[in-house]
Amino acid sequence: MDNFTFYAPTYFAFGKDTEQDTGKYVRRFGGSKVLVHFGGGSVIRSGLLDRVKKSLEAQGLAYVELGGVKPNPRSGLVYEGIELCRREGVDFVLAVGGGSTIDSAKAIAAGVVYDGDFWDFYQGKPVDNALPIGTVLTIAAAGSEGSPDSVITYEDGMYKRGASGEGLRPKFTILNPALTQTLPPYQTACGITDIMAHLYERYLTNTADVECTDRVIEALMLTMINEAPKVMADPNDYQARANILWAGMMAHNNCCGVGRTQDWASHDIEHELSAIYDCAHGAGLAVVMPAVFTYNMHHNVMRFAQAAVRVWGCEMDFEHPERTAKAGIDALRRFLVSIGMPVNFAQLGAKEEDIERMAQCACYGDARQGTIGGFVPLSKKDVENIYRLML
Amino acid sequence: MDNFTFYAPTYFAFGKDTEQDTGKYVRRFGGSKVLVHFGGGSVIRSGLLDRVKKSLEAQGLAYVELGGVKPNPRSGLVYEGIELCRREGVDFVLAVGGGSTIDSAKAIAAGVVYDGDFWDFYQGKPVDNALPIGTVLTIAAAGSEGSPDSVITYEDGMYKRGASGEGLRPKFTILNPALTQTLPPYQTACGITDIMAHLYERYLTNTADVECTDRVIEALMLTMINEAPKVMADPNDYQARANILWAGMMAHNNCCGVGRTQDWASHDIEHELSAIYDCAHGAGLAVVMPAVFTYNMHHNVMRFAQAAVRVWGCEMDFEHPERTAKAGIDALRRFLVSIGMPVNFAQLGAKEEDIERMAQCACYGDARQGTIGGFVPLSKKDVENIYRLML
Repeated sequence: MDNFTFYAPTYFAFGKDTEQDTGKYVRRFGGSKVLVHFGGGSVIRSGLLDRVKKSLEAQGLAYVELGGVKPNPRSGLVYEGIELCRREGVDFVLAVGGGSTIDSAKAIAAGVVYDGDFWDFYQGKPVDNALPIGTVLTIAAAGSEGSPDSVITYEDGMYKRGASGEGLRPKFTILNPALTQTLPPYQTACGITDIMAHLYERYLTNTADVECTDRVIEALMLTMINEAPKVMADPNDYQARANILWAGMMAHNNCCGVGRTQDWASHDIEHELSAIYDCAHGAGLAVVMPAVFTYNMHHNVMRFAQAAVRVWGCEMDFEHPERTAKAGIDALRRFLVSIGMPVNFAQLGAKEEDIERMAQCACYGDARQGTIGGFVPLSKKDVENIYRLML
Repeated sequence: MDNFTFYAPTYFAFGKDTEQDTGKYVRRFGGSKVLVHFGGGSVIRSGLLDRVKKSLEAQGLAYVELGGVKPNPRSGLVYEGIELCRREGVDFVLAVGGGSTIDSAKAIAAGVVYDGDFWDFYQGKPVDNALPIGTVLTIAAAGSEGSPDSVITYEDGMYKRGASGEGLRPKFTILNPALTQTLPPYQTACGITDIMAHLYERYLTNTADVECTDRVIEALMLTMINEAPKVMADPNDYQARANILWAGMMAHNNCCGVGRTQDWASHDIEHELSAIYDCAHGAGLAVVMPAVFTYNMHHNVMRFAQAAVRVWGCEMDFEHPERTAKAGIDALRRFLVSIGMPVNFAQLGAKEEDIERMAQCACYGDARQGTIGGFVPLSKKDVENIYRLML
């Protein structure tokens, strides 16, 4: 295990009706003038936005609103939000929605208190300071509700890049599983896939002796595998939604990723897909992960075999561990198909002729240094090969 | 899963030499005049106390010292510490040692800013405010380094009682696995047992649909079972020490105990033993746990069977699940014996003639209401029966 620091000072309020306390938590964490940031119509139609605004009003909190966040959130709205916050003297950013809304809120919160272009943070500058952020989460997926990370698509060139830093950890997060019950099955499945990816990205490490975090990652994967079929069969299964919601937070607040190298090749390779084709991030990951893992399997067969045995219930083939490793990747693919995820380029609307351009952008675009991935450093040629496995 | 809140804003610095940054963290979290609180000779002999004091001096931080914390820390030293802090204008309490030192430091930190008797907190008053606390941990065991809890023995009557509250969460904790390498095998094993107990106390729940936290608890138990033999065989196994240290924190910061009823009968029953006989808390728990679990097994056979299968590798007896449940408890007992823990009253120096008195004190002493335990409410008669199982 490597040296590390871990600091996750987000206050979580979990359970039924907890969104009614939003105003109370904004006040507790120092807000007086709030930007309420959200996406499209679902939080309006469901009445959630109204309930949240009422809880702000009940605390005597002033607020301004900025809706319109899209999946794969974009830089344009971030610039608009920064301007709005400065003009209105906002001192707290509240995201009501999913990972895209939270990531957009984080970018705004960081940008408001920064003299330069907020995009600097998405080119590697750590975010030490930002306006305080709160979140009311509506989908188990991105883990942004408990993480110090944000991903934004830069519209001039459609680059998708991530920022990170302690300033981006939400001060509080409201997790009401009932809010996720109205999600369509496809979005639910995309969220489940994203959570599985966050776990695999940490699992694929070159650090030895990481038993504790290995086991916790496996525990969270097992939770997802057990609970996912329940919510696919019955979207109103509150308890399964609750287990997925907490697992999704734990999968990405990094309590299970500390002290080890991590991979993130699948995310980097997927980001090109969702940036260009605007597919759902989770759907892209469903196509990308089996390809990346198949390509990288021989780098550490035993690690994939461990996942196969402990997580996917495969029997260990002691004579041919690589068969076990492969069986685990196959089991992951079957799981993703079972929840309705795509498996190839065609299903994403992706095109073979874009492969070279995407590999170029993944490896060299916007401050990248020629390789991606912490598990196996992947060159542009490798990334092209991996994209071809998805055809 | 029940509604819950979770807030664990402790900054963890984990790894080799991290104690050299103690002063930096004290300053970051607002300290200017520090109480350095510690126990006996080991932190002096090892040079740890000197290194910590040097790091305070390097930051220009003034400090006063209070040593002498004993295992099963006592109220007398707490009163002394409160007086000292007030007299010297201390604004930060730094614990250098194990769970006893941290718990004593927490009691002092709460008492300094409270007008009444600090013991009020150990009779149920939540600790909302306290001086900021930092810890440099020397043993994986109590989990106090990341928890909002503290246990103190009241010397007038030798009651052992717990306090809790957000004010007791350390602001930072230094976790250097190398500091735990010098622990004698018996203390190492006591710590391992305490960690296993923290996991079982949460595992034994009456809340349904807690897959996620069940799985994480099992993951941490599996970690302990895998890593414990390594440190017993080689106390200098840094990596095994590291895995145990992180697992011990996660076992008790409550990330795996949220949204579910918990038990704590084993702790309550053990506290009487260590209060009277001054045995090590972990050693007491090794004797208590199998007795409590055997007594309570029929309340929920399937829960014990689940632990047996998933954690202890027992085969499920589908016709006789109670046999599987019992096999899991037997496996726990064998594990505890394998690391050198006692199994009965005689080995603890405990006496049959004290059983009635201990059961009385556990169930009725000092603000108790007649029963203990969240899994099965245990009356005084039940507790007597359980003590008799340990003879």
